[in-house]
Amino acid sequence: MSDRKIKLAINLRGVGGSMSEWRHPDAKADASIDFELYKEWAQKAEAALFDILFIADGLYITEQSLPHFLNRYEPITLLSALATVTKNIGLVGTVSSTYSDPFTIARQFASLDKMSGGRAGWNVVTSGLLDGAANNFNGKQVHHDEKYELATEYLEITKGLWDSWEDDAFVRDKETGVFFDPAKMHTLNHEGKFFSVKGPLNIERSPQGQPVIFQAGLSEPGRNFAAQFANAIYSIPQTIAESIAFREDMRKRAVTFGRSADDILVFANISPVVGRTEEEAEQKYQEIANLVTIEHALNYTSRFFNHLDLSQYPLDEPAINLLELIPGQDGTFKYFTEELQSGKTLRQLALEATTPRSPFMGTAEQIADKLQAWFEAGAADGFMFVPFGPFGLDDFLNEVVPILQERGLFRTAYEAATLRENLGLSIPKNRYAQS
Amino acid sequence: MSDRKIKLAINLRGVGGSMSEWRHPDAKADASIDFELYKEWAQKAEAALFDILFIADGLYITEQSLPHFLNRYEPITLLSALATVTKNIGLVGTVSSTYSDPFTIARQFASLDKMSGGRAGWNVVTSGLLDGAANNFNGKQVHHDEKYELATEYLEITKGLWDSWEDDAFVRDKETGVFFDPAKMHTLNHEGKFFSVKGPLNIERSPQGQPVIFQAGLSEPGRNFAAQFANAIYSIPQTIAESIAFREDMRKRAVTFGRSADDILVFANISPVVGRTEEEAEQKYQEIANLVTIEHALNYTSRFFNHLDLSQYPLDEPAINLLELIPGQDGTFKYFTEELQSGKTLRQLALEATTPRSPFMGTAEQIADKLQAWFEAGAADGFMFVPFGPFGLDDFLNEVVPILQERGLFRTAYEAATLRENLGLSIPKNRYAQS
Repeated sequence: MSDRKIKLAINLRGVGGSMSEWRHPDAKADASIDFELYKEWAQKAEAALFDILFIADGLYITEQSLPHFLNRYEPITLLSALATVTKNIGLVGTVSSTYSDPFTIARQFASLDKMSGGRAGWNVVTSGLLDGAANNFNGKQVHHDEKYELATEYLEITKGLWDSWEDDAFVRDKETGVFFDPAKMHTLNHEGKFFSVKGPLNIERSPQGQPVIFQAGLSEPGRNFAAQFANAIYSIPQTIAESIAFREDMRKRAVTFGRSADDILVFANISPVVGRTEEEAEQKYQEIANLVTIEHALNYTSRFFNHLDLSQYPLDEPAINLLELIPGQDGTFKYFTEELQSGKTLRQLALEATTPRSPFMGTAEQIADKLQAWFEAGAADGFMFVPFGPFGLDDFLNEVVPILQERGLFRTAYEAATLRENLGLSIPKNRYAQS
Repeated sequence: MSDRKIKLAINLRGVGGSMSEWRHPDAKADASIDFELYKEWAQKAEAALFDILFIADGLYITEQSLPHFLNRYEPITLLSALATVTKNIGLVGTVSSTYSDPFTIARQFASLDKMSGGRAGWNVVTSGLLDGAANNFNGKQVHHDEKYELATEYLEITKGLWDSWEDDAFVRDKETGVFFDPAKMHTLNHEGKFFSVKGPLNIERSPQGQPVIFQAGLSEPGRNFAAQFANAIYSIPQTIAESIAFREDMRKRAVTFGRSADDILVFANISPVVGRTEEEAEQKYQEIANLVTIEHALNYTSRFFNHLDLSQYPLDEPAINLLELIPGQDGTFKYFTEELQSGKTLRQLALEATTPRSPFMGTAEQIADKLQAWFEAGAADGFMFVPFGPFGLDDFLNEVVPILQERGLFRTAYEAATLRENLGLSIPKNRYAQS
């Protein structure tokens, strides 16, 4: 355990993941569409020795969408651009397996991987049945039971295509005129339930062999999918106990799929608010939370209540009567159910839904203590850092990361040039290689 | 006419468009997969004030594919990476409308366009029925009669999505909390024969309004498609007369679609070989041509003869008897038919097919004269320069371009920051804009 270090990823989200961060006086209100700012952030995260720069995504918007979702860069293009202005940090982006083509996605991630010198990663998401994305893709719907079956076939194809060329396939012998060895070019010839893809891919493997696979599903089929394919999992746990249980479960599942428990890294989501004192941290949270009007907050929150007009309900009394309006029991719906059961008012619920309160609030030492506790208890192998407010990035990089380094919990130099090696993962051998 | 200037594009093709250029002593044999080299080329082309950097593409390979095709970057990723290391040059890439999703492609080009400050362009290709690409995309086939019908619907969708947001839709008023004006967000709600795409797109317009549309089809439906949508056409004419007729035809067709004749620019393909003397130019051509073995040449050429083993035929007598083996009459097949009818031997045919001889060979002055003649005769608005051999790029940029500038035929400084403005095209108004 002594050599085990915390892995750090940063989720870059422009104007932020809440409704109101863009209104802060120090915020760039067009941050989601400002490439120079993304470049600055990426270079800061790399200077702080982060493992990963992560770009999330979504495939549809409505008038009710959060500001960042309305107007932002597409992940493949953004990561490719950031590849040229960084040298060591991993470049991981979200793409849906339901709404894309495996041949194209295999190519785009292989291309990013090759041009970045082996730093690419793909966060595989399976878009849900209720997801408005279908409206932008010919109404294509994949039933819940089938979406991971489809994703499994999709991953088998992309991983197969990424092995189209053995590492020494390109001979390029000017003397003999032999450009490549045909025996080291492999045609996939995949014929499955959802896809037929012949191959080979028209690009060679990168120094890390294949792009890193990220995944974020929590359902039973989602966990098995991750256990089979993922090198890293993005989790959003509410408590340390929940996160320990989740990580243990994933490590066991990895073994049942013939992998090592250490082949799969859990990145717990954190959005810390750092102050010189606890009071200052609380004040920084309030600075952001108070930028939301109650009208905006109710409007935003209505999406979790079948888009009902919530302004018809009383704001300042326990809102337990709203329980029956919650249309589901998973994920965010579970959160709202528990909040209402605990006696929250509609005003509290709406404001906290709009500006979620991080469990990682306090001084830099307090936050470092908590990260250390989570890491050492086996609740996480690393953390997915989501900056909160325009001060969030500098606060965490300048105040918290150095403490983790002083404690020997985080690197003081990149170990390698590729993402897999920095994550401590092995570089997969080409399946066709003879030796 | 006095202000009319030649437009110049450069088609970057790694190890080259022929079978043998990579074997030249000065060639980088892995050029197609060397990002630093692409960056160097892009920056040289920009220093030479080129309008466009062009990346072609293909969606399948076989053992017989040319070296560059086997192992190269995917255009969207490559152009996004090149966007960050250039400032003025246009970034145009090929994507097939048959094997992609309009919502995704609209996003990716909009994202590239926005991050490059309005320099993106899309070369729309419709992959043919005989194209092996179908094997990599679930066997999807679009019949010849339908592929431009599909492309037309596809372009209507992407152009519609690119107008999702009026230019002043994002208010971002920190005081009032208004992030955007919902009246200036437009949902496309497209329902057509091939696609249903709701929108809106989740990214705003760039400074040039919409990405530039390139096209290269020569068939009747291809010409009408280009006349309707294209800002620029990539043509590969054999003679000046052919090119004048083509450009005149396209300008007339543009008018029938309610556009101005000047809204559509014809870029004629050139692959010049520059020498201090004609003899030196010929010697440079031979340097490359002689790198191909006759076995490789026959093997390559067989693709145009139903993959017959051509080594069974005599090499050095007029090969008119091969005429009946040519499976079609379009494009390259037409070229081979004419060559055989003119009395060429199989050896000549195979070697010239493998290393096509440019009509633009000679001294820099001679080549400049010819470009000027083509331009002034109305055979082209500009040229798509494809470097031939490892010396091709520097020769043209250092020797020929300065002559064009001295004659007032080519710019001496970029006129603007966006691709549309440098091309002399207008910036399209958002279709929903009231004023």
